[in-house]
Amino acid sequence: MDRISLELIKGIAKPSPTRIVLLVIDGVGGLPNPETGKTELETARTPNLDQLATKGMCGLIDPVSSGVTPGSGPGHLALFGYDPLSYNIGRGVLEAMGIGFDLKQEDVAARGNFCTVDKVGLVTDRRAGRISTKKCSELCQLLDRGVIDRVKLFVRPVKEHRFVVIFRGEGLSADVSDSDPQQTGVAPKVITAHHAIARKTASIANQFIAQAGEALAKHYPANMVLLRGFSQHPQLPSMGEIYKLKPAAIASYPMYRGMAKLVGMEVLETGTTIEDEFMTLKQNYAKYDFFYLHIKQTDAAGEDGDFDRKVKIIEQIDSALSELISLEPDVIVVTGDHSTPALLKGHSWHPVPILLYSKWCRPDKVTKFSESACLSGGLGRFPATQIMLLAMANALKLTKFGA
Amino acid sequence: MDRISLELIKGIAKPSPTRIVLLVIDGVGGLPNPETGKTELETARTPNLDQLATKGMCGLIDPVSSGVTPGSGPGHLALFGYDPLSYNIGRGVLEAMGIGFDLKQEDVAARGNFCTVDKVGLVTDRRAGRISTKKCSELCQLLDRGVIDRVKLFVRPVKEHRFVVIFRGEGLSADVSDSDPQQTGVAPKVITAHHAIARKTASIANQFIAQAGEALAKHYPANMVLLRGFSQHPQLPSMGEIYKLKPAAIASYPMYRGMAKLVGMEVLETGTTIEDEFMTLKQNYAKYDFFYLHIKQTDAAGEDGDFDRKVKIIEQIDSALSELISLEPDVIVVTGDHSTPALLKGHSWHPVPILLYSKWCRPDKVTKFSESACLSGGLGRFPATQIMLLAMANALKLTKFGA
Repeated sequence: MDRISLELIKGIAKPSPTRIVLLVIDGVGGLPNPETGKTELETARTPNLDQLATKGMCGLIDPVSSGVTPGSGPGHLALFGYDPLSYNIGRGVLEAMGIGFDLKQEDVAARGNFCTVDKVGLVTDRRAGRISTKKCSELCQLLDRGVIDRVKLFVRPVKEHRFVVIFRGEGLSADVSDSDPQQTGVAPKVITAHHAIARKTASIANQFIAQAGEALAKHYPANMVLLRGFSQHPQLPSMGEIYKLKPAAIASYPMYRGMAKLVGMEVLETGTTIEDEFMTLKQNYAKYDFFYLHIKQTDAAGEDGDFDRKVKIIEQIDSALSELISLEPDVIVVTGDHSTPALLKGHSWHPVPILLYSKWCRPDKVTKFSESACLSGGLGRFPATQIMLLAMANALKLTKFGA
Repeated sequence: MDRISLELIKGIAKPSPTRIVLLVIDGVGGLPNPETGKTELETARTPNLDQLATKGMCGLIDPVSSGVTPGSGPGHLALFGYDPLSYNIGRGVLEAMGIGFDLKQEDVAARGNFCTVDKVGLVTDRRAGRISTKKCSELCQLLDRGVIDRVKLFVRPVKEHRFVVIFRGEGLSADVSDSDPQQTGVAPKVITAHHAIARKTASIANQFIAQAGEALAKHYPANMVLLRGFSQHPQLPSMGEIYKLKPAAIASYPMYRGMAKLVGMEVLETGTTIEDEFMTLKQNYAKYDFFYLHIKQTDAAGEDGDFDRKVKIIEQIDSALSELISLEPDVIVVTGDHSTPALLKGHSWHPVPILLYSKWCRPDKVTKFSESACLSGGLGRFPATQIMLLAMANALKLTKFGA
């Protein structure tokens, strides 16, 4: 939140019977196809989005800052109104959330890499030649059997050489250094406590690493582990507290279900398709006053560099949107947590198109939901952290500031 | 002020013979009439405003922040260049200013409610059934006779159940808690001092409440009082100090005269009509180099939900504007302290149209002063706290920053 603190919002938010739907099309922003000059969103046929754009207002958001490519964590925190520069979610916690691990408040999580070390223990490959995810799973099972000093360890595969370790027990602290030296030709670092209170955690982590080294000795190239990003469940004020909302999340991917849980949303059971998610919205519409609906497939297509697939998914979302529109929410916001241009095969720094529809919009002249049209939209270009405030205002859920 | 502090402005401001007129059309921004698709400002015939828009530059301002509906206090502070999030004016002071009470520097003011308590003293209605303003006046007279511990108390009616108490004497502090519990079913709270220095004020306030309870015993439903928002005249640096201006205010409503006094303007005597105010400007034009001219009627029409009346008042202002234009001020700024769409019958969060005319404008293509035209204006969308800096620059009243 730029100048407006969560504390201030808490002071002006009021419950009301109106409903807000925040539809997050992950990685929706793109770049023009050099052959057509049109982005994925501009190529797709999107009558429903265009109708909303015509009735409502459009603009562009910066999730973190102009020029900064956001990860999914910061991108989503911003959408929910939390300053992603103030609320940092540790790497370990993000990885645990990403695989849907049910992290407890006191757990400490660390991101792990399987790596290669030479005979004298110097790191030669920080990613063990990017072993397969299958291999990673096997090795994690090998390591996942430990209790050290009465602390339970969970070792879970993520993808390729990536895994996550969760430490569960009393008196743990995430305030320890990494073992990952972030370079080759040197030995893994000994983990040290930044404060006395973290000594136990450092000791257990070092014991785990020593045991892992022994267990992996014959598993070249994955013959050692590197740990980094020790972190705990961050203590975020809940959306219920701040906005006086009863919020629900509809997301099929664990990472986003985890993000929603972090900010106190109720996470609804849903299926794996886009249609499933919209059906879940319909079925639960009466029970909540805020819905976060997350669609992952656009981002995945962008990451794969598959321009045409991303176009098709956007069209599929547009069709499913009829369902949402027929519910007549008081406020509909459609945007993404970042751009994922198929041309870049990854997240990017480009601002993300946004549309906001409500009865109380002062309409602009935009009649299409696209990057180029949003450039002249009435919402202008603004930080993503302001979206919630705008949505709340349009839902008449905010009282006057000052007399 | 976003990134530019008042201290910095003080360092670059210089006196000059040029003149600035800031015309504040209260609540000028609106929403489109569903029948015509045009806002109040877009419906009104405004040849003078349009001529200024054509010669000058237009844009949109956010008084506090996107999505935040400002009260008149924060809205005006921002127009005068004071960050409304840093300079908070207490509720008691605002109420005192609103009724034109001549508040001294050491006075402490508190907002009061007449309320209803049951036999055992629990609050059953925080507003005493919204008694009439006439009844409120009578009850205030009943309570307005006190000197407690050598401190003089003024009890003055505001509107319906609302009143204000001003404590005048030595050694007072506003650093005390409220007696208003902000809910029913509980007893009014005992006022406590947040610091030792405020003990005297807390004690006097509690004595006043006890006496009021006795005096009101037979005046059901207004049989008790609740106090909140104890505050003192905030210490704001004056506009004279910051901008090196000799500023004058022309406003017929007490609240805005009070706001102007807070920032060190000379408040001129004027009449109650729009024409009176422009006449006052003409008569005093030679004596000051900055004029704040406030017109309340637009906001009142918006609050009443009277679209057509708001249109007519805007047209009336436009006619009166000839008078102002003929004085040939070096800089004319026309804007509002917030939007008040007739459709919403109240202040709103929508950004406010602004036009700035000076000889030194780099003109844009806007030829009409309206919400939709301002959207593509050369001033863009910006925080209201920057208006004074822009006006000063256009009046050639600022020196270079840095060598």
